[in-house]
Amino acid sequence: MLLTEAARLAEIDLDIPCGGQGRCGRCAVIVADGEGVRCRSTVRLSAEDLTAGYVLACQTVVEGDAVVIIPPQEKIERRLVTDKTAGEIALPFTYDPQQHQPMRLMSLTIDPPTMHDQTDDWSRLKRSMATTFDVLDLVADLDTLRSLASTLRQADWTVTAVVETDTWDRPEGPPRLVDLLPGGQMQHLWGVAVDIGTTTVSVYLVDLLTGEVVAKAAEYNGQIRRGEDVISRIIYASKNDGLAELESLVVATINEVIQRAARRAKVDPGEIYKMTVAGNSTMIHLLLGLAADSIRLDPFVTTINHPPPVRASQLDIAIHPQASVDCLPGVASYVGADISAGVLGSQMCDSEATSLFLDVGTNGETVLGDCDWMISCACSAGPAFEGAGVRDGMRATVGAIEEVWINSQTYEPTYRVIPDLRLEARGQPTPPRGICGSGLISLLAETFITGLIDKAGNLNFDAGSPRIRQGEHGPEYVVAWEGETEHGRDIVFSKVDIDNLIRAKAAIYAGFTVLALSVGTDLSTVDQVLIGGSFGQHINIEKAIQIGLLPDMPWEKFRFMGNTALQGALLALLNRGVRRQVAEVARRMTYLELSSDNTFFDAFTAALFLPHTDLTSFPSVAEVLASREDEP
Amino acid sequence: MLLTEAARLAEIDLDIPCGGQGRCGRCAVIVADGEGVRCRSTVRLSAEDLTAGYVLACQTVVEGDAVVIIPPQEKIERRLVTDKTAGEIALPFTYDPQQHQPMRLMSLTIDPPTMHDQTDDWSRLKRSMATTFDVLDLVADLDTLRSLASTLRQADWTVTAVVETDTWDRPEGPPRLVDLLPGGQMQHLWGVAVDIGTTTVSVYLVDLLTGEVVAKAAEYNGQIRRGEDVISRIIYASKNDGLAELESLVVATINEVIQRAARRAKVDPGEIYKMTVAGNSTMIHLLLGLAADSIRLDPFVTTINHPPPVRASQLDIAIHPQASVDCLPGVASYVGADISAGVLGSQMCDSEATSLFLDVGTNGETVLGDCDWMISCACSAGPAFEGAGVRDGMRATVGAIEEVWINSQTYEPTYRVIPDLRLEARGQPTPPRGICGSGLISLLAETFITGLIDKAGNLNFDAGSPRIRQGEHGPEYVVAWEGETEHGRDIVFSKVDIDNLIRAKAAIYAGFTVLALSVGTDLSTVDQVLIGGSFGQHINIEKAIQIGLLPDMPWEKFRFMGNTALQGALLALLNRGVRRQVAEVARRMTYLELSSDNTFFDAFTAALFLPHTDLTSFPSVAEVLASREDEP
Repeated sequence: MLLTEAARLAEIDLDIPCGGQGRCGRCAVIVADGEGVRCRSTVRLSAEDLTAGYVLACQTVVEGDAVVIIPPQEKIERRLVTDKTAGEIALPFTYDPQQHQPMRLMSLTIDPPTMHDQTDDWSRLKRSMATTFDVLDLVADLDTLRSLASTLRQADWTVTAVVETDTWDRPEGPPRLVDLLPGGQMQHLWGVAVDIGTTTVSVYLVDLLTGEVVAKAAEYNGQIRRGEDVISRIIYASKNDGLAELESLVVATINEVIQRAARRAKVDPGEIYKMTVAGNSTMIHLLLGLAADSIRLDPFVTTINHPPPVRASQLDIAIHPQASVDCLPGVASYVGADISAGVLGSQMCDSEATSLFLDVGTNGETVLGDCDWMISCACSAGPAFEGAGVRDGMRATVGAIEEVWINSQTYEPTYRVIPDLRLEARGQPTPPRGICGSGLISLLAETFITGLIDKAGNLNFDAGSPRIRQGEHGPEYVVAWEGETEHGRDIVFSKVDIDNLIRAKAAIYAGFTVLALSVGTDLSTVDQVLIGGSFGQHINIEKAIQIGLLPDMPWEKFRFMGNTALQGALLALLNRGVRRQVAEVARRMTYLELSSDNTFFDAFTAALFLPHTDLTSFPSVAEVLASREDEP
Repeated sequence: MLLTEAARLAEIDLDIPCGGQGRCGRCAVIVADGEGVRCRSTVRLSAEDLTAGYVLACQTVVEGDAVVIIPPQEKIERRLVTDKTAGEIALPFTYDPQQHQPMRLMSLTIDPPTMHDQTDDWSRLKRSMATTFDVLDLVADLDTLRSLASTLRQADWTVTAVVETDTWDRPEGPPRLVDLLPGGQMQHLWGVAVDIGTTTVSVYLVDLLTGEVVAKAAEYNGQIRRGEDVISRIIYASKNDGLAELESLVVATINEVIQRAARRAKVDPGEIYKMTVAGNSTMIHLLLGLAADSIRLDPFVTTINHPPPVRASQLDIAIHPQASVDCLPGVASYVGADISAGVLGSQMCDSEATSLFLDVGTNGETVLGDCDWMISCACSAGPAFEGAGVRDGMRATVGAIEEVWINSQTYEPTYRVIPDLRLEARGQPTPPRGICGSGLISLLAETFITGLIDKAGNLNFDAGSPRIRQGEHGPEYVVAWEGETEHGRDIVFSKVDIDNLIRAKAAIYAGFTVLALSVGTDLSTVDQVLIGGSFGQHINIEKAIQIGLLPDMPWEKFRFMGNTALQGALLALLNRGVRRQVAEVARRMTYLELSSDNTFFDAFTAALFLPHTDLTSFPSVAEVLASREDEP
């Protein structure tokens, strides 16, 4: 008897979304005393899992007595990272604000002026800062000086100075008074780290006194409605007032996301005194109001790779107007600050192992190298992996189908939806609203592996499933019927979506190929694959390999880095040494221009199949396909 | 026979506005061969004049043959300084832009990017600036970067960089790219020096390549309509949006005056790349949008005496938006950048002679000292001396009565009007529109000396002149009848005007007294009196002494410095060494707070008479008064 059957008899509800074929790994249980059991397949389990005693219930036959532990479901499901909660962020250093942080709070009481000491307010404050804190040559912007007189008097000469001691472009200072607060206000000092993705803008709200991330938030980049990838944005920006419009759209998104994070943490956004920004070069240019045309046109150069820090007020960012906004440096037009921040966040630049770093965003930016050398490239993947530009695509938030399994007999899907926590608390399921990027990869892999689509992505009407139909916009597979969904409409996966996804994955895979070729090697020399990007952490590696998005390697070689760009921005926000290192990484990295090279086009064309024209480079997928053909 | 009578017989027209009493000095002629002449009085002539052979025609009797030269009228009249022409400005150093000037033009041709050199535009420009001009660590504001890509490409990579190598607060640099011009544009590099007077705003437009002042302009400060002196402006600024309104009013005036100067020199104001500003502390605060309340309230301190340079765009000054606007430093609330600039402009800080420096503006700021010590004070004189706050007052421009003589027999006035040059060219007189400051001093002195008013300023109705009458607003003296004037209304000098002028001169004179007392001396130890201020240069010293505005000293001790504040701004604009020296002067100068001291009030009260309660300190005036009483 299969363990799944035994569980059913014991009225224990085990999830078997793949229909008991050992493909989804969702029925993993621990055999504590394993005398009476026999495993048929452990393909979904890692070596670590096996050591820990995990087996797949659907692949395990009970032949005698056995003690089986069913772990809590959340230990099996990967931890959901929505924009709701601030998870633990592990810093690769022990945060010491005095050593790492240029932002400081300094509380002081100043001798008021008298008829015998008519020193002006500013000199008086500077004198006090020098004697109390040894801060010399303090400077301030005009706007800060404008409120000086009233703050000093209203606070009866006891104030807290918010000081930025240095910036990356002026490491020697002078220290700048960013704000002067009445009274003693030493409790918090807020900063934000921002990642401007082409599709998604994400922020961390951070207390710079402790290094703690107190809130997160994310939202689609408001520029999407003016073009889904960087090229269409650049073209839009080059016409009429397009640049100003795109600038204000992304600023509006940033402000909204910051406000949401701030509201959750009960922080006034006006008290945020520092912001670091990661983003690709186009996103950074559009944020700063810099023309991006040259990024698109041969020979593809940016206006600036290392932008100077600017004031929040210059960009209409709704934090403290005098806050520094520090855009991290990029390498080239298509390898921007998101990648240099990501390389740093992933620490590949400190390792002797050969790493392939991949940021699966709208642009597929890839870096190959180690602590001695790094070569990078970028290819336009489009926004499909972020759930945009897809019929029922959505961002990975409440109501998104984030994983799908298809029963290879019935072609009926089972899916997991990012839950509404209130419904979940009441034991109610969350109805789906759409499909996010990881759900799309899942769908593409499952429809392919189950034979619902062929290697070119054509839907198999011969399968006889009522879910395969001719839709309004072409062939489609119905993932959820209208009765199951939140909005009462069918959620479908269409041929158009499939083609988009295949082009996206082909572009990214072609990038790997060309990078490896350019240094005279192939992907077999890669010791680890680091997957960054806010979306990357949601990828199911098995399924990503099955569609040919990731190279076919042992799963142990893959490491999910999360949103490395955002992490890089966070590290730079918290540590001036890291900020300098980002600049160093950006300077060191070689950039390979794919468009000047036919190799890329050839590699792209070869990758326009599932998983690839050359099936021999995907042995694990070949094996699964072969086993499918063996089925009755 | 008097020389005036001889001239009349010879049909030579000699001006005798005072009626031939030897008081006005306007009938000065040169006796080339003087055997047959005898002078009765030379009181209006200097030792220099006498050496040169000058006599007063009305005081010289012809007793035999004589050769008399009548000099061209302009050699007698002081040179008119209207806002129309750029006079010669003598610099106390030989201008060497390489040595003195932080603003530079650098023309260069840059290698364009290729697929093999995808260096970003900004790094490419910096690289070229470093190799061509040895300019390292160039920085730029965001706005400058915004046009970088298009300028470089439109100009086909040949450009001219406008660079500011350093500022007073950052003498080590880094150099800043202020603008990037297409092609080679090495002909001119424009700057402006601005003096913001409480009443009048004046500018010099300067070519920083040559140091030449190419145009001047001046206009009433638009803030006047919101208060005539600094105190009423501060009160206005402290209410509702008063500060923002006053800021925008003065900015509008500055922009208008700059535009006028630029138009005259056929310069685009957008090509002005540097601005230095002198002004009293309140004017500087209001320009910068800094609250000025504390200037008015005990213990009278400013927000900042040494403001940092700001960008023109931050203040809405309509020159190049990235131009530095450098407000010169002040000493205290009532001894501002106008005075430190003035002390520097007058060079009293380099002299061993004890100087009394006086800026006769709306505030009477005074400095006593030499190269070793300086003490300063300020007293609110009001705007009367600038022609404002007086019934028929006006600025010293076309149509202003600038000097008046009253016939002591007939009480009929003769006046000189600042001429309309077009009318003058056609030999037509310019009809008067009002009375400017120097005309008012002249009127006050003449009415007093001729007995039309008494020492308390009351009009003498017993004189029997039809010009003395009861006007709508009290007693008045008619200076010009409606038929003579441009607007067809009488121009009058009223009791209210007289009282305003007496209070103004009393405040200024009391300042001298208190300064001298504070260092244990009196005015007799003063070696020279330096008269600054845009208005100061128009003062007739004899008449200023007669009303008790200036101390009664030999005329040789007085030196007109012109608008020293504007000159100081000009020197600072042209010479970074001088700019540093202004800061040094401002730091060195001791400030005496008059309001904390009863001595000032006593001195002020004593000075509320013509010329003063203590006539013994005005011996020359006493003599004139005595001679008047001797007359029949």
